[in-house]
Amino acid sequence: MLRCAQQSLKTVIATAVAQNRQKAMSTASSRLDLEGIYPPIPTPFDDKEEIDYPALQRNIEKWSKIPFRGLTVHGSNGEYTFLTTDERIDMVKKVRSWLPKDKLIIAGAGCESTRCTIKMSERMAKVGADAVLVITPSYYKGGMTSEALTNHFVKVADASPVPVILYNVPKFTTIELTVEAILALAKHKNIIALKESSGNVAKIGHIVHWTKGEDFTVLAGSADHILQSHVIGASGGICALANVLGEEVCRLYELCRTGDITAATLLQQKLIGPNAAVTSKFGVPGLKFAMEQFGYYGGDPRSPLLPLAKEKQSLLLSLFQEDQFLK
Amino acid sequence: MLRCAQQSLKTVIATAVAQNRQKAMSTASSRLDLEGIYPPIPTPFDDKEEIDYPALQRNIEKWSKIPFRGLTVHGSNGEYTFLTTDERIDMVKKVRSWLPKDKLIIAGAGCESTRCTIKMSERMAKVGADAVLVITPSYYKGGMTSEALTNHFVKVADASPVPVILYNVPKFTTIELTVEAILALAKHKNIIALKESSGNVAKIGHIVHWTKGEDFTVLAGSADHILQSHVIGASGGICALANVLGEEVCRLYELCRTGDITAATLLQQKLIGPNAAVTSKFGVPGLKFAMEQFGYYGGDPRSPLLPLAKEKQSLLLSLFQEDQFLK
Amino acid sequence: MLRCAQQSLKTVIATAVAQNRQKAMSTASSRLDLEGIYPPIPTPFDDKEEIDYPALQRNIEKWSKIPFRGLTVHGSNGEYTFLTTDERIDMVKKVRSWLPKDKLIIAGAGCESTRCTIKMSERMAKVGADAVLVITPSYYKGGMTSEALTNHFVKVADASPVPVILYNVPKFTTIELTVEAILALAKHKNIIALKESSGNVAKIGHIVHWTKGEDFTVLAGSADHILQSHVIGASGGICALANVLGEEVCRLYELCRTGDITAATLLQQKLIGPNAAVTSKFGVPGLKFAMEQFGYYGGDPRSPLLPLAKEKQSLLLSLFQEDQFLK
Amino acid sequence: MLRCAQQSLKTVIATAVAQNRQKAMSTASSRLDLEGIYPPIPTPFDDKEEIDYPALQRNIEKWSKIPFRGLTVHGSNGEYTFLTTDERIDMVKKVRSWLPKDKLIIAGAGCESTRCTIKMSERMAKVGADAVLVITPSYYKGGMTSEALTNHFVKVADASPVPVILYNVPKFTTIELTVEAILALAKHKNIIALKESSGNVAKIGHIVHWTKGEDFTVLAGSADHILQSHVIGASGGICALANVLGEEVCRLYELCRTGDITAATLLQQKLIGPNAAVTSKFGVPGLKFAMEQFGYYGGDPRSPLLPLAKEKQSLLLSLFQEDQFLK
Repeated sequence: MLRCAQQSLKTVIATAVAQNRQKAMSTASSRLDLEGIYPPIPTPFDDKEEIDYPALQRNIEKWSKIPFRGLTVHGSNGEYTFLTTDERIDMVKKVRSWLPKDKLIIAGAGCESTRCTIKMSERMAKVGADAVLVITPSYYKGGMTSEALTNHFVKVADASPVPVILYNVPKFTTIELTVEAILALAKHKNIIALKESSGNVAKIGHIVHWTKGEDFTVLAGSADHILQSHVIGASGGICALANVLGEEVCRLYELCRTGDITAATLLQQKLIGPNAAVTSKFGVPGLKFAMEQFGYYGGDPRSPLLPLAKEKQSLLLSLFQEDQFLK
Repeated sequence: MLRCAQQSLKTVIATAVAQNRQKAMSTASSRLDLEGIYPPIPTPFDDKEEIDYPALQRNIEKWSKIPFRGLTVHGSNGEYTFLTTDERIDMVKKVRSWLPKDKLIIAGAGCESTRCTIKMSERMAKVGADAVLVITPSYYKGGMTSEALTNHFVKVADASPVPVILYNVPKFTTIELTVEAILALAKHKNIIALKESSGNVAKIGHIVHWTKGEDFTVLAGSADHILQSHVIGASGGICALANVLGEEVCRLYELCRTGDITAATLLQQKLIGPNAAVTSKFGVPGLKFAMEQFGYYGGDPRSPLLPLAKEKQSLLLSLFQEDQFLK
Repeated sequence: MLRCAQQSLKTVIATAVAQNRQKAMSTASSRLDLEGIYPPIPTPFDDKEEIDYPALQRNIEKWSKIPFRGLTVHGSNGEYTFLTTDERIDMVKKVRSWLPKDKLIIAGAGCESTRCTIKMSERMAKVGADAVLVITPSYYKGGMTSEALTNHFVKVADASPVPVILYNVPKFTTIELTVEAILALAKHKNIIALKESSGNVAKIGHIVHWTKGEDFTVLAGSADHILQSHVIGASGGICALANVLGEEVCRLYELCRTGDITAATLLQQKLIGPNAAVTSKFGVPGLKFAMEQFGYYGGDPRSPLLPLAKEKQSLLLSLFQEDQFLK
Repeated sequence: MLRCAQQSLKTVIATAVAQNRQKAMSTASSRLDLEGIYPPIPTPFDDKEEIDYPALQRNIEKWSKIPFRGLTVHGSNGEYTFLTTDERIDMVKKVRSWLPKDKLIIAGAGCESTRCTIKMSERMAKVGADAVLVITPSYYKGGMTSEALTNHFVKVADASPVPVILYNVPKFTTIELTVEAILALAKHKNIIALKESSGNVAKIGHIVHWTKGEDFTVLAGSADHILQSHVIGASGGICALANVLGEEVCRLYELCRTGDITAATLLQQKLIGPNAAVTSKFGVPGLKFAMEQFGYYGGDPRSPLLPLAKEKQSLLLSLFQEDQFLK
């Protein structure tokens, strides 16, 4: 849509995504198949705020039994902004060593600067990431024009040894990666997908419609619209709720895929309350508290995030109890 | 969801929606069936900015041949904030006289004050409105708490001779009528539906799920998520695009209803671009310009809204041309 | 500033503010002198939510003894959006009859449509308003471009029998009337002032600097920056706090005018807490409650605004007690 | 203000800022005197995007001749979010070696996590920073409550070898550090100042008023309200414009200090346009381009920020030309 609207943007892209870097249809079949559900895993900390690797390993073992397509490491739920560069790399390396080979790792490689993002992508590829998730930079809000953002993503995609997944999450960044920019970027042969975390299912539909020739995948960014995004063309999701109700989220997606809309509708409706509990309502502290209720290690977030306050804990529990996910 | 979270709100509602005003399940069957598609019709003006009733009559005649459930008069696309009280009433009266009897009229009766909204609802009922659409007041943003809003809607619903439809449209009001407030209000026997114009299909699903016993209807507020909201439980929509592509929007909803998801997906995807053209991209001036392309009277908006500028006209046309809705 | 930046806007204005309507320097001396302090008076309601004119008259008598330059009737604190057109006119008429002749009345005449604003301005002039305060329309946010807004104000100023004061109050409208638009509008001979309620004292300074040849007045929109705006060129203010602490606000402005900055600083600092109490913290309900503490009639706001809740009442009182404005 | 309003916050602070860490009035005289003007210096890059230290040294030499109180390194204009930890430390070390000993260095030490901010503060102190500027973390917006933020600042202040300056800059962070939180934090003996970059001069006045016993300094965050904030109690500013018009900004502050309000008003008014050019209008790329006009090295920003586009360059120049700062 509106590809015609922004002549200058088109020129940027035309220049940036030079012929040799545009997708060739013939190679499409060889591309990474991303379809499915991914939990964006939290980073577990011990009581000194160090990464608790034994706890992480136990969580990975539990998640490995669920029919996920893979894991996302260092999405927004991973508190990645609180980790050092080395922590980010080491954690992906460890997760790769513990995770069955048929499961993908999508590693968050986004930084504020382009050069840092490129280095991070290279290192993530080396330690085993199958693809990198690259968030829109966001500190200099006025400077993050569509032109600046497309420039950033093209440079990262040019350099990254593994495919790039665009990551739009305005609730954290206050930046919106526009449909026009996404459609332009989808032509780059190393940009293969979008994690759309705005909840905007019209945007998802539009992008799917206009990238039909591009072998481009859209993943929903939350478990409260798996069904609603699937019917319009999304291919699964990267969803916080999958950390705690992984079986249920995978079952929902399977109902979508097999076209059992009636059952999907009911299950989707039931998951919206619990989903809110671990995202919009109580954030990462809520997610970590919820994980404890389902046999995972949760623990406390790193400061300045605070652990979930007592009165919020009971509100959170009630959201899982209303539809019998907890008793 | 979170009904437990706001004890004070619950108390307000418990008091406000006294026993005798709560829905009795036995009477549910007698309630107005709202399911279907409604164009929120624009108000046509002549070149002196007066309401052009002959033009309106011709538009009504064209719309009457389309399988709409009815029309919405004085939604946001009707420039109702630019009309006097008498103009609002007169226009509904005229539309009623021209519209086939089996088509519903949903009349926008919202004002900033409760007392004005009540008077408007009474007058709208008298001139033939089947239900009133009541927007959240929004000028005193800090004062429009859930408590204030529920109080407002309960008073209006108590007094209105016809059923009330809640109207949440944050893009114009910057006010969000919360899930909690809506679930409380849905218990009132004279509050029968919600027009949800945020595009938030998770919210829609949650409300449908938790009002299953209430005979409460949710209508989507835009044509770019008819399918995505239908699968999660919405019962149609009040959609600007239906003014210009009424047949197509009705066909999409029929495909949803009959479960032909594959065909619905394709048609829904095609309608997203044209929908953006008459809503988020170009607003009421865009809608009016588009109407001219499809044989309706559009005309100019009232000042201070400006007619669609020349360069935007061609962008708008291209959005309809991309999928052959125009040549 | 940036007058060069928006060529198209300049063209609009050049066309709109035709030669014969531009300010002639020679006539500048005859213009209305607005300098001073104005309380934007609340509208008192009785327990049936009708305007309580006897109470209003008593308030006017008290305010008349304070060295205000005049009163603002139907500013945002006047709940004008809850009044009918006739109520708005009648109230101004009554206030005029009770107010000493040397005090100005600035009457809020803004409506969403240009034509309604024009009619309101004409009627306000007839019943005695010395100037009209015209707010930016705000419902159709995307449509309220600088071009649309300047068009609106020029049409109103062309038609209004009394001078126009621009009113920018983004906290209620979410619309920002830009520096560029204001500088252009300041050239119109019937646009004589701006009420700037954003609190942006850099914007105020810029406008004062670039309208030095225009006989244009800027009034601060809140009592928490009377001094800070005075030193950069503002000529007083329209301030909610003046309703309750009128003597103190006038004394502060007098200290500013006479250059006693040290005393002004201390008094200004003390007024910031009480000012927050009747504006950002507790809004119109807070203002009305505070008025009761100082011997004025306050009463309840019209629904949907709610009276100030008990727990907020004591917070409000403490803000007046901290610096001994109340005991 | 409103210290009474948030009982739980008070408790947090009371606990956090334990007796032994509260300010003792007797030691106040020994504290760092921050009063004055500081340019928040940009980080110069060469054409490979590496820090250009020779260029930086030349800039430092020029700035050293201006009566600044010191420099701020790694404020928002320093593109600090694009630098590695080591780059941030090295640059401060170099600046310290080139800057005359009587000039202060305020070093930006803020990171998203508390532990990273503490380490950065320790390292900044070691390489010669006189104080650290600590920004509000901002990625997890919903989690950055007043409780979380005060907790963060208290932990950092407890650990930092040099005094802490709070940094509130909602235009980049979308986080507002409230008056209540600031007043509580001002009691900590190692928290000595606030850089307030919201432009809210009422907030500044309120904080100055209620920290009179605390030896707490407020610095304005932009050069367009040096005078307006001075009259209400601010003690200078950290201002992007001082990088290019350092003499003028210092002269303005001297006029404020000596009470020559008339001259200060005129100079302040003239600086608002150029200030907008290097901040709100054109950001860091604008600041760097402007520096080139005044004999400093500017250069390009790091990607994803783009160099100032040609058409914006002439707009920027015109803003300096209007009042003869450039010809």
